Amino acid sequence: MSPADSGIREFHEVATQLVDVAMGRAHADLVVLGARWLNVHSGEIIPQTDIAVKAGRFAYCGPDASHTIGPDTQVLEANGRIIMPGLCDAHMHVESGMVTVTEFCRAVIPHGTTSMFVDPHEIANVLGLAGVRLMHDEALVQPVNVWVQMPSCVPSAPGLEEAGATITANDVAEAMGWRNIIGLGEVMNFPGVAANDPTMVGAIAQTRRAGKVVGGHYASLDLGRAFHGYVAGGPQDDHEGTRMEDAAMRVRQGMKAMLRLGSAWYDVAEQVRAITEMRLDSRNFILCTDDCHSGTLVRDGHMDRVVRHAIAQGLPPVTAVQMATLNTAQHFGLEREIGSVTPGRRADFLLVSNLAELVIDEVYAHGVKLAEGGKLVADLPAYDYPASAKQTVHLKRALTAQDFAIHAPQGANSVTARVIGVVENQAPTKSLTMQLVVQSGLVVADEQQDVAQIALVERHRATGEVTNAFVSGFGYKGRCAIASTVAHDSHHMIVVGTDREMMALAANRLGEVGGGVVFFADGEEKALIEMPIAGLMSDERAEVVAAKAEMLLEAMREAGCTLNNAYMQHSLLALVVIPSLRISDKGLIDVERFEQVELFVEHA
Amino acid sequence: MSPADSGIREFHEVATQLVDVAMGRAHADLVVLGARWLNVHSGEIIPQTDIAVKAGRFAYCGPDASHTIGPDTQVLEANGRIIMPGLCDAHMHVESGMVTVTEFCRAVIPHGTTSMFVDPHEIANVLGLAGVRLMHDEALVQPVNVWVQMPSCVPSAPGLEEAGATITANDVAEAMGWRNIIGLGEVMNFPGVAANDPTMVGAIAQTRRAGKVVGGHYASLDLGRAFHGYVAGGPQDDHEGTRMEDAAMRVRQGMKAMLRLGSAWYDVAEQVRAITEMRLDSRNFILCTDDCHSGTLVRDGHMDRVVRHAIAQGLPPVTAVQMATLNTAQHFGLEREIGSVTPGRRADFLLVSNLAELVIDEVYAHGVKLAEGGKLVADLPAYDYPASAKQTVHLKRALTAQDFAIHAPQGANSVTARVIGVVENQAPTKSLTMQLVVQSGLVVADEQQDVAQIALVERHRATGEVTNAFVSGFGYKGRCAIASTVAHDSHHMIVVGTDREMMALAANRLGEVGGGVVFFADGEEKALIEMPIAGLMSDERAEVVAAKAEMLLEAMREAGCTLNNAYMQHSLLALVVIPSLRISDKGLIDVERFEQVELFVEHA
Repeated sequence: MSPADSGIREFHEVATQLVDVAMGRAHADLVVLGARWLNVHSGEIIPQTDIAVKAGRFAYCGPDASHTIGPDTQVLEANGRIIMPGLCDAHMHVESGMVTVTEFCRAVIPHGTTSMFVDPHEIANVLGLAGVRLMHDEALVQPVNVWVQMPSCVPSAPGLEEAGATITANDVAEAMGWRNIIGLGEVMNFPGVAANDPTMVGAIAQTRRAGKVVGGHYASLDLGRAFHGYVAGGPQDDHEGTRMEDAAMRVRQGMKAMLRLGSAWYDVAEQVRAITEMRLDSRNFILCTDDCHSGTLVRDGHMDRVVRHAIAQGLPPVTAVQMATLNTAQHFGLEREIGSVTPGRRADFLLVSNLAELVIDEVYAHGVKLAEGGKLVADLPAYDYPASAKQTVHLKRALTAQDFAIHAPQGANSVTARVIGVVENQAPTKSLTMQLVVQSGLVVADEQQDVAQIALVERHRATGEVTNAFVSGFGYKGRCAIASTVAHDSHHMIVVGTDREMMALAANRLGEVGGGVVFFADGEEKALIEMPIAGLMSDERAEVVAAKAEMLLEAMREAGCTLNNAYMQHSLLALVVIPSLRISDKGLIDVERFEQVELFVEHA
Repeated sequence: MSPADSGIREFHEVATQLVDVAMGRAHADLVVLGARWLNVHSGEIIPQTDIAVKAGRFAYCGPDASHTIGPDTQVLEANGRIIMPGLCDAHMHVESGMVTVTEFCRAVIPHGTTSMFVDPHEIANVLGLAGVRLMHDEALVQPVNVWVQMPSCVPSAPGLEEAGATITANDVAEAMGWRNIIGLGEVMNFPGVAANDPTMVGAIAQTRRAGKVVGGHYASLDLGRAFHGYVAGGPQDDHEGTRMEDAAMRVRQGMKAMLRLGSAWYDVAEQVRAITEMRLDSRNFILCTDDCHSGTLVRDGHMDRVVRHAIAQGLPPVTAVQMATLNTAQHFGLEREIGSVTPGRRADFLLVSNLAELVIDEVYAHGVKLAEGGKLVADLPAYDYPASAKQTVHLKRALTAQDFAIHAPQGANSVTARVIGVVENQAPTKSLTMQLVVQSGLVVADEQQDVAQIALVERHRATGEVTNAFVSGFGYKGRCAIASTVAHDSHHMIVVGTDREMMALAANRLGEVGGGVVFFADGEEKALIEMPIAGLMSDERAEVVAAKAEMLLEAMREAGCTLNNAYMQHSLLALVVIPSLRISDKGLIDVERFEQVELFVEHA
């Protein structure tokens, strides 16, 4: 289980070279002199340590590496700076950054991330196993370690939506044989696990049979029987805890508690108290991001931000570092590959001039300098996705305003309709019922009541189907519409607008560019983030995407939308696994009762 | 990597049953009510915990298991006793107990041992890969978990001895495919690792290729370059440390420090100070026994003795328990199988009425009660070895006193001979030179100087060869001889005696019974431990063997030998990897310079 590499050779292929260097019979490729060694195994900071690297791996770590230095050895004076292992993100979705794996790496390497465990759940919903394979293969050629977790729950809500693809237990079995698959991605169908749903049982069994790690996702506050049923089914970690007791309960059951700080997740501060206050054994705790926008990566950082935050919560710095290095490595069975600066491991390390604030001067992976002073210094060629991955917005024909017409019942002047109610800073929606007026036989948006139209446009099979409904809470004013092919988890297209013409313009524009997000107002395109890869990812750099995302937010604000994380709210409106009311290609879905409901409650 | 079981099913084969029990949809096989839960993950003792077991695995661990109890559920009232995981011995040689795997299990299960990691290094020296396979197969049918480490260094000292067999890197590759092989046994040829010896490099590479654990054995006080060279070669643990700094150095290099308390090893007290005084992270420390005699098992215990001892050194009891449970499981990649009382794991547990003194009331493995009140309560049928394993003492013909004649150089009245000097309580010997008299052309033993004869009788290939030399330090008086086919590591036959007739009697007797140890004095057999299996193991119970061993010691004492651990000293005299002077089938070996030397230094 050791790949996730671009060309680094297996330990056993280079072991004799490492021994020769340690013994002084051969010269190191690189030597770091005079570092303070943050030793994640012993939990110490050991002064005056030299480190020798050969063939991309550590060969010697000790008080004096002078015997390993030859004329061709690159020598680096640490001058008492800390040397520590590169940071690991134990669970994350590249797609959340709206960029490719390559561009994600380009953005996070300067922040000290050298290992990622990515779950390509989004692309799996669009392109199925083939999409997973594309990201798997891209992961393999990175200069850092990017292991792939096989998505487990595609579609997220079978029966309530039709995604672009389905992942079966047989798909899981196939993927477990791929070079770079480290385990099963978050098993988010937690009621399914507790109910012995055959697909969940099969996916977990195939993963365990392969000796790999089953990722968990228990998104519930219920720590009673449902929780125990989920635990018994086999998930080995969980990043969905939010409270101190969530972390404690998972650890006591023999799971790893993954504490998450993403762009919109803030689950470290509360849960880290299980260590700082309850004094639970910290080896069970692991840090991750889950979801980071490009803007977060560009402005605030990645795992460095998480470790810094964890230290700020009162964790000893060495403990916080262990939670982003050694603990992660041990969890995934990679302790001999990554996660510490010790002989045999991949030479992934950071030189740090201030540990408490985690000031990272230099970043190395596989013995190669990749970043210095927050800037990438390595060549990282853009990665080309095949045309098949770029033609995923399948519209039957150009849409018109007619496609977004919501016909009132014959003769009605007004209707009582179910309306999806967006709640600021919360993932769950409200299920509202509101009185809406009828004009020329059509029920229309109502700026006064902050009600816009929402449409789910089928885009995987070109069925031409459009599901229309209403949403409240965005505050849009005037004639505007926003469309997005990032539409968790089945990733059709969600269009929200105050005007049917604008909605058609927006939807058609995404059809043209192969997906992304676009905002129209008064007939003009105000912002566009092209995401040609599966309609989920740009092929541009993170800072470009972040700049475009900033323009999008500006356009939304100008149209009256001041909601925090408004675009994320938009993209979650089809997430038919989180209460209360959502939209899918099958209609309006009541996510309390997990069934389809009618748009109109009654009419007068 | 999960076998080592008699019939327990894989987790993924029974996961749905565990979920059904946890959810209350099916009944548990066994429920423990009202225990205090020693949780090795969190490091807590959690009061009022119920545990439900199904299909040999834990299904539920929490505050109330009443919903898992049905009419057929066996219910056990813990009444506030501690429930904790069964103990693991991380590295040990069954052969040291002079009994079979089955009889070893019978002896140690009542002491709470439910998992063992056994390195059948001794039988490998006699029967090679086939011998390893025999013990591997015996291990598989035990009611507890017995994983096998593939021996790595057979013979121990290539060129200096001819063992009964050779283990090659190809043998290692083959064994890695066996169901129950957990890794590579202690790589004791530490100079070979640092020198990139091809067999060592190959054995390690094959193990790592199989994703398994490379056991270490660095038996040197040199923590300089030789140590770093060994570490770079890949061994992942080491049980040969004796000093606090030994443990610390191994941990800092990313190895696990295995702390050893065997019958004659006392390496815990010093090294545990790396935790109690240096405050190193205890997750890196693991307890083991390495070698236990039957007498120790019968009188003092096994891993319970080690944990008790560790607690007595000032370790918190929970930490000491982690070092014999969870830490071991994690090291071998078995965290989801053994080492904790949590859902999904094998239901191997102890009920303990006094934690500080580790008073074990009941022992369960795979959900079945195996011992209570220190007595085995399960049926454990004796295991039959095939005849091929019992016919391993191959003598060319019956030996006579002539075979032990040491001819003096022509015309000499006395000689200066090299004499192996036994040092009480130490493994190294001294290389002495002493003046010995000649009688009728033969150099003879000298009671005054405490010099006896020693002979190494070839017994693997019936060559008829006998290597004769002298040994000092046993204190034998009168006409006596002791012979043993336990003769580390190549396990020929070592005979020590004051009289050539007695030596012949002893050697022939072992030929008759297929090996073991025998003591003759004045023409009479005073003690005999038959070890028909490979000449290394009895097929009797540990208490029978222990009683016979007691008779042997008594016979030795009566003959004047008062040395502590005298029989062990005897059995180590051919161990040509530990200084200074040893005997092998090739002659007298100087183990400082690793070369054969002449018996006589000069003659007058």
